[in-house]
Amino acid sequence: MQDPLSHFDEQGQAHMVDVGAKADTERRAVARGTVMMAPATLRRIREGTLAKGDVLSVARVAAIMAAKRTPELIPLCHALMLHRVAVDFELDEGASQVMITAQVTTTGKTGVEMEALTAVTVAGLTIYDMCKAMDRSMVIGEIRLLEKQGGRSGHFVRKEAVR
Amino acid sequence: MQDPLSHFDEQGQAHMVDVGAKADTERRAVARGTVMMAPATLRRIREGTLAKGDVLSVARVAAIMAAKRTPELIPLCHALMLHRVAVDFELDEGASQVMITAQVTTTGKTGVEMEALTAVTVAGLTIYDMCKAMDRSMVIGEIRLLEKQGGRSGHFVRKEAVR
Amino acid sequence: MQDPLSHFDEQGQAHMVDVGAKADTERRAVARGTVMMAPATLRRIREGTLAKGDVLSVARVAAIMAAKRTPELIPLCHALMLHRVAVDFELDEGASQVMITAQVTTTGKTGVEMEALTAVTVAGLTIYDMCKAMDRSMVIGEIRLLEKQGGRSGHFVRKEAVR
Amino acid sequence: MQDPLSHFDEQGQAHMVDVGAKADTERRAVARGTVMMAPATLRRIREGTLAKGDVLSVARVAAIMAAKRTPELIPLCHALMLHRVAVDFELDEGASQVMITAQVTTTGKTGVEMEALTAVTVAGLTIYDMCKAMDRSMVIGEIRLLEKQGGRSGHFVRKEAVR
Amino acid sequence: MQDPLSHFDEQGQAHMVDVGAKADTERRAVARGTVMMAPATLRRIREGTLAKGDVLSVARVAAIMAAKRTPELIPLCHALMLHRVAVDFELDEGASQVMITAQVTTTGKTGVEMEALTAVTVAGLTIYDMCKAMDRSMVIGEIRLLEKQGGRSGHFVRKEAVR
Amino acid sequence: MQDPLSHFDEQGQAHMVDVGAKADTERRAVARGTVMMAPATLRRIREGTLAKGDVLSVARVAAIMAAKRTPELIPLCHALMLHRVAVDFELDEGASQVMITAQVTTTGKTGVEMEALTAVTVAGLTIYDMCKAMDRSMVIGEIRLLEKQGGRSGHFVRKEAVR
Repeated sequence: MQDPLSHFDEQGQAHMVDVGAKADTERRAVARGTVMMAPATLRRIREGTLAKGDVLSVARVAAIMAAKRTPELIPLCHALMLHRVAVDFELDEGASQVMITAQVTTTGKTGVEMEALTAVTVAGLTIYDMCKAMDRSMVIGEIRLLEKQGGRSGHFVRKEAVR
Repeated sequence: MQDPLSHFDEQGQAHMVDVGAKADTERRAVARGTVMMAPATLRRIREGTLAKGDVLSVARVAAIMAAKRTPELIPLCHALMLHRVAVDFELDEGASQVMITAQVTTTGKTGVEMEALTAVTVAGLTIYDMCKAMDRSMVIGEIRLLEKQGGRSGHFVRKEAVR
Repeated sequence: MQDPLSHFDEQGQAHMVDVGAKADTERRAVARGTVMMAPATLRRIREGTLAKGDVLSVARVAAIMAAKRTPELIPLCHALMLHRVAVDFELDEGASQVMITAQVTTTGKTGVEMEALTAVTVAGLTIYDMCKAMDRSMVIGEIRLLEKQGGRSGHFVRKEAVR
Repeated sequence: MQDPLSHFDEQGQAHMVDVGAKADTERRAVARGTVMMAPATLRRIREGTLAKGDVLSVARVAAIMAAKRTPELIPLCHALMLHRVAVDFELDEGASQVMITAQVTTTGKTGVEMEALTAVTVAGLTIYDMCKAMDRSMVIGEIRLLEKQGGRSGHFVRKEAVR
Repeated sequence: MQDPLSHFDEQGQAHMVDVGAKADTERRAVARGTVMMAPATLRRIREGTLAKGDVLSVARVAAIMAAKRTPELIPLCHALMLHRVAVDFELDEGASQVMITAQVTTTGKTGVEMEALTAVTVAGLTIYDMCKAMDRSMVIGEIRLLEKQGGRSGHFVRKEAVR
Repeated sequence: MQDPLSHFDEQGQAHMVDVGAKADTERRAVARGTVMMAPATLRRIREGTLAKGDVLSVARVAAIMAAKRTPELIPLCHALMLHRVAVDFELDEGASQVMITAQVTTTGKTGVEMEALTAVTVAGLTIYDMCKAMDRSMVIGEIRLLEKQGGRSGHFVRKEAVR
């Protein structure tokens, strides 16, 4: 029986899968996650985007830079030259959280979902780092793939009912 | 009024905070997170730990290596020479998830919570990468600090009632 | 006759100099540089600091991150754990330029002037990158050490008459 | 009104610009800079190129390696696979300075001017590092793009009258 | 007379050779090396592959990750996007050694022999690191190219009679 | 029974071993290796050290830089701030090989043998890369620890009878 996980060969050894026979197609992935925090922390972040002390602009730079370094972090991930990386934040006062969305596109033989997920998590870690002086109980969560286009596996759209 | 976020100076500009006056103390941090997945995916992971195709041993190596590179990823994070990094996985069939716990220790002027949180998230991303061929709907979540010792802020223990 | 350049041994071969016998002392370095540009480019940068499209906050993050990676870039430079990195910008409309100043401190066996100089140059390169769509003739220049404290070579203060 | 700086989206947020629609064309960039120094320092460098203790060969290697890592340093810079990197030095005794010239070529969707500029600055920083034991007053300067070919913006040749 | 080493220009200066005129062809390289060790060390490694404490799975991950970073380590090596990296180990009790074989493939303008050789050496270094507590006399050796396909230099197959 | 390999915990899981209780002592390691090659290749290398096209000076820089990055390459290796790295080459015409020796020193809780071994192997790989245009049959070999001082395991001196 074939292993459903392509990252292992027949001997069960990890390898970087051969993508040489795959076509170069346009790839796009959108990932999302959240950082839940105390209302005072969220308020401080919002004030920074209007004035000085902007947490989110630092997190955005960190996320974009991390997306480019995804194959250095994820052992079996192929390197790709990314065409676009964009990271958006939405402040959700009802749920007292920052919602992080990353979009990555390229043309290549493998998808960019790991790059989008890495951007989201590093954005979350950076927000945590910058706000931890006032709030150590933040939770980074719900990191998932929203959408993925290109390649043999076709168009994936997440049926959203996470929360 | 002083900004509660020490990562900004009086002008609201991001900087790497001066830790020169801090004492070198023993530091320890424990962080945790989960990867929720389909029961079949969890089953495949469990089988790999017994035989061949071991997802978790790859994720563990990735997590330890990422912990060492935390200051390259998180812009305002100080470099530290880590004394220990350990990453444990627990397979929770009830909740259909892998629970990831990372412990990091050192002696230094700043804490190691970012290193522990980075280890957890990169473990989660690696599990996602290796299992995504069979399950694109996995969710990495509940990444939080469980415990933190050393330094002026004292002993933090999270009141766990996350789920 | 002894080579005045300590980075070479008696055979004239490059090596990373032995600093084992040096004392751990407090170290501080301040470096400065400029990016000369068209008045319209400088105006665009100034507007971004007040509203959206903030070139300097991206350059500041890049500079701080680069300071931490100095020993990866400069072959014979010793690694150090930096205590503080701060990067300031001043917009000089008279000379139509951005003035970049970086301060780095640590306690260690070698100085931090290369870290401060690296922060300044990467800030300059990032400003160039972000503004090059409107101005390809910018010049990054006058990158020099302003001040240096700690270590055997004592307190260096540059006699400023650069321009 | 549209922002002339393409590195920001309509909300003024930094992003890595989409280059997916751009054609792959041959790209070439030439950048230049100088390190001004005391005549004795320049003399020491010249002697090293003839005998042992060769500062410039170390700086050349550092510059080539840095060119390859440009997208790790410059936050919004796209990764490219470089076809050629060459770094030349000219010793100018009249002005008591080393002139650094870097040429980079590739075929791709974005230009290589940041790679050429990064090579020049890291060459300058390495020369500074290696000579600072005898001369702390060196100034790295006049870093600018000399020429750029390929891509929509056409052939740029700097009107040289920098000094 | 022309220098047979293409990594130097006519002035004898190191440069990253222009590969712009080369065709993109399928490339494949196979490299091999060994770690000679005490019989007890080899026995311990074998036991780990059956049960817990698996040295080789850690070494395999390290080798694959290192292959991707080859151009960061080898100064004049061009970056390539690798299609496949696989690392195999064979335990040779007769010679009391682990035999490491790495295969790398891609489509590109330059070959992947340096990537395959880097994977082998980092696998060897990792085995050394993990076993050095019980055996400091291990020898990493016989690292050589077995086979190479693609590009102008044609199909190279090593005439094996190394030992 | 306890595992002789400290890089695994009681469950047989890889971890970065706790060095927190170890004393900071002076550490020194010397490692050696060779690159065997055709006599014509060795001759070309020798000529370069006298004139232009100096293979060994490029390999030396690569080796020193790699030593500093050892903990990024070797998964369970602790980061250390190195005090000195020196790399020497000896041309052995009898055996038609380059002998590479690396010395590394620091003060720390763990030894620097991995740093010395990494320097030797990256020097070997760089020599291979630069000479492969004229000689694809070179063999990098006999990489071993010659000497190690500092720490609990005491003074190790290899009984040399490798060849």
